[in-house]
Amino acid sequence: MDLQGSFHVYDTTLRDGAQQEGLNLSVQDKLAIARQLDELGVGYIEGGWPGANPRDTEFFRRAGTELDLRHARLAAFGATRRAGVPAADDPLVAALRDSGASVVTLVAKSHDRHVELALRTTLEENLAMVRDTVEHLRAGGQTVFLDAEHFFDGYRDNRSYALEVLRTAAEAGAEVVALCDTNGGMLPGWVSEVVHDVIDTTGVRVGIHCHNDTGCAVANTLAAVDAGASHVQGTINGYGERTGNADLVAVVANLELKLDRQVLPSGLLGEATRIAHAVAEVTNVPPASRQPYVGTSAFAHKAGLHASAIKVDPNLYQHLDPVAVGNDMRLLVSDMAGRASIELKGRQLGFDLTDEKELVTRVTQRVKEMEARGFTFEAADASFELLLVEEVEGARPSYFEIESWRVITETKPGDEAISEATVKLHAGGARIVVTGEGNGPVNALDHALREAIGQAYPEVAKFELIDYKVRILDQGHGTDAITRVLIETSDGASSWVTVGVGHNVIEASWGALVDGVTFGLRRHQV
Amino acid sequence: MDLQGSFHVYDTTLRDGAQQEGLNLSVQDKLAIARQLDELGVGYIEGGWPGANPRDTEFFRRAGTELDLRHARLAAFGATRRAGVPAADDPLVAALRDSGASVVTLVAKSHDRHVELALRTTLEENLAMVRDTVEHLRAGGQTVFLDAEHFFDGYRDNRSYALEVLRTAAEAGAEVVALCDTNGGMLPGWVSEVVHDVIDTTGVRVGIHCHNDTGCAVANTLAAVDAGASHVQGTINGYGERTGNADLVAVVANLELKLDRQVLPSGLLGEATRIAHAVAEVTNVPPASRQPYVGTSAFAHKAGLHASAIKVDPNLYQHLDPVAVGNDMRLLVSDMAGRASIELKGRQLGFDLTDEKELVTRVTQRVKEMEARGFTFEAADASFELLLVEEVEGARPSYFEIESWRVITETKPGDEAISEATVKLHAGGARIVVTGEGNGPVNALDHALREAIGQAYPEVAKFELIDYKVRILDQGHGTDAITRVLIETSDGASSWVTVGVGHNVIEASWGALVDGVTFGLRRHQV
Repeated sequence: MDLQGSFHVYDTTLRDGAQQEGLNLSVQDKLAIARQLDELGVGYIEGGWPGANPRDTEFFRRAGTELDLRHARLAAFGATRRAGVPAADDPLVAALRDSGASVVTLVAKSHDRHVELALRTTLEENLAMVRDTVEHLRAGGQTVFLDAEHFFDGYRDNRSYALEVLRTAAEAGAEVVALCDTNGGMLPGWVSEVVHDVIDTTGVRVGIHCHNDTGCAVANTLAAVDAGASHVQGTINGYGERTGNADLVAVVANLELKLDRQVLPSGLLGEATRIAHAVAEVTNVPPASRQPYVGTSAFAHKAGLHASAIKVDPNLYQHLDPVAVGNDMRLLVSDMAGRASIELKGRQLGFDLTDEKELVTRVTQRVKEMEARGFTFEAADASFELLLVEEVEGARPSYFEIESWRVITETKPGDEAISEATVKLHAGGARIVVTGEGNGPVNALDHALREAIGQAYPEVAKFELIDYKVRILDQGHGTDAITRVLIETSDGASSWVTVGVGHNVIEASWGALVDGVTFGLRRHQV
Repeated sequence: MDLQGSFHVYDTTLRDGAQQEGLNLSVQDKLAIARQLDELGVGYIEGGWPGANPRDTEFFRRAGTELDLRHARLAAFGATRRAGVPAADDPLVAALRDSGASVVTLVAKSHDRHVELALRTTLEENLAMVRDTVEHLRAGGQTVFLDAEHFFDGYRDNRSYALEVLRTAAEAGAEVVALCDTNGGMLPGWVSEVVHDVIDTTGVRVGIHCHNDTGCAVANTLAAVDAGASHVQGTINGYGERTGNADLVAVVANLELKLDRQVLPSGLLGEATRIAHAVAEVTNVPPASRQPYVGTSAFAHKAGLHASAIKVDPNLYQHLDPVAVGNDMRLLVSDMAGRASIELKGRQLGFDLTDEKELVTRVTQRVKEMEARGFTFEAADASFELLLVEEVEGARPSYFEIESWRVITETKPGDEAISEATVKLHAGGARIVVTGEGNGPVNALDHALREAIGQAYPEVAKFELIDYKVRILDQGHGTDAITRVLIETSDGASSWVTVGVGHNVIEASWGALVDGVTFGLRRHQV
């Protein structure tokens, strides 16, 4: 399929997405993300603004040799020439021309007040800047797209001027003019009206670029496509300034799976969940569990009410098969869950419990009883699996026996607090006593526990505690309350979550730590 | 304005929102959230399903005496009667009748396949269940709304049956029938078409209940309102199963600020940001910084390109004035606390800072610096007041001087963990050393601290730690992360909240404990 043909999926994660608060991408990061985007099959990857900052200049320099794109073309982003300077003499335009990118996306003012107040030039000169810059780049053989900044606000303020900017760009050779809702304040009905009018009046090829300030970025993008736009801009995971850009995966999934319009090479949408999470690893922004299509919760079901019907027909309770976007249905074992969800959950973990009525009853009862005490298994798959193994095999997997532990936290005047933990246990036929230090009591216990067990099981050295969450249950009872701790442990290749509960936050953490190491050992021994 | 009149803002945070993965609300939590929702001015608060689980039953029991709602009516959620049983004999229907709520929202099947496969009854019996249950509750004087579950999928599958369910409910006395996109797969155009058809064909009063699986929950809700729906359901922060429900604040802000349709009492939308964050404190789900309207990034601008133009006219770069939703424009990548809010907060605490430019600058800077380290003062008024007193009076109030502290937590085989704390301090001219025990390290420290200070200040005996919250900041860094602790202390007559921060959870707790006792002593000595 021709990704650069009648419909464009245009990604701007590396440029507009990078404007997100707290997001900071190195050249290496940008190259890694570009490879992921290409695997998703987008038609265009906007790499940044060469010439405007050294990092983006270097990105385009290295992209030429280090990126081997199968599907996408790389686009360089930049502005029209400065007022009063020929395009050929503007060094920023030269940087775009010499970037090595075969596509340039030029941002231009289309809102009269922005021309006058921000650009401080005349409306006529702004049109000349658009014309000259597009013509100059086209003459050098590059494809040019125009991003009409603040287009929707400009259209409201001075419709004829906003349209004139688009016409000028198209006449000068821009292939697409993308209408930008730069401030993000639009709603779908308005976008639809404006796009219809633009196409009817000017006949230009229209693209759409939305921000999520009204919570409608995806819907606004779809409204534009419905009205005739044939080029959609967005970012992976909806990264972007303020509330973010249109989430490109949600846009594409809606187009392909809801509106029967194929816009990526066949089969690649099935990689979306993996790719969205891989990009999140690079950006180091924790993925939103509730994210449409690709979130870890996007196809998770909690209510016990639903679980029995899901067994009959999963499609009664999901809007589509999660495999279409590479996601998975997950059943959460919660206090609302009944036998049916335990059975389904068991199947997911590789235990066929269909004919094990008694066992399922026993597990259901134990889960209910433990959840009443404050445990939760919906996020703690590893603790649930240990419980299931215990009931199926008759005993909990056991690799070590704890004798006792102790942790001390103390301060001296003027000093930071320090924690020191001592763990005594039996493993591999020996009694082991280890003292560990840490910047908190759980950190100290974790160090001591893993060092002690590591003496019998060296593979424990690979394990690392990567996330720690505390929740006080029964609020209103102060420190007498029940504490629930969730711990995520990684072995470098995968990670698992365990849960611990207790009146004592340290004891709750200890329970989760022990489960975490036990689960990891079972995985590595079996 | 009549919140129960021609347009309903209906919140289901406490019921459908609570279905979110990882969200687990105690009765105390639900009461606290209900109070916040009432301050936002919603017309209806759906409290849960009395009779279906003990927690929700207790919520409705306590709501009668403990909730003093100014704006909202409380709604009980539940299902139509079981097949083959008169409504009067169904104990779950009785629980709704006897819940004390003046409104009942009944969920009913409107999708023929769900009736047959999930409910396992006939289409006729399902209609009878709707009719009987509505009539039974109406006869007892309750207002009844109907949630037509899976309505949009049912409409596609068997339009006439789906419409028949609505007609039956309305004829039996339901005031509103809410069309539920239970699986969340709809797009705005489809919602619009269906709502138009439902209203044209049946003439019933239509409500809308959307989920965000396509990323269009807000837009779908607005499309329904545009087509004639006059009752919108949603949740604070978009909490809910899978990808969540429609974000009620975004829906309301779009209606009021974009579509000029006032749906909350005048001025209350300006509380939205504060309330959304306060609810997040209760749920302990970190607020999404990119959340439309109320996110901390929602009006944040990366300085540079935009900065000078923003000075000329801020409205060139924002879609509306953030004050309309109680949010702030932020120009730097630093934390909120502007001078204006410091001044305002000072005034609330009895300090007139209008002419204290230098002092306000100093406090603003200190707050910014401390917030960058993980502190938050939004919920911790007492810690903020201590900071303010320190700057106004030149020194922090001091009633005792800590020499050192230590806390040990340990287990012996087969025993529960116990904690023991030793605190050494100087107060009332004496050196005091006290050891206290507790069922956790913070509990033990609290006991030792208050016993030691009590030897010099007997009024401390009245103080009690009534709430303790831990939040791990910087998730993904395991136990090395920064920990923030919020502690609420009561003297029997009132209560106050203090904050502590540190790498070590015990040290963070200690900071909040010391602030809590100090604040209480100041209040009782002045």
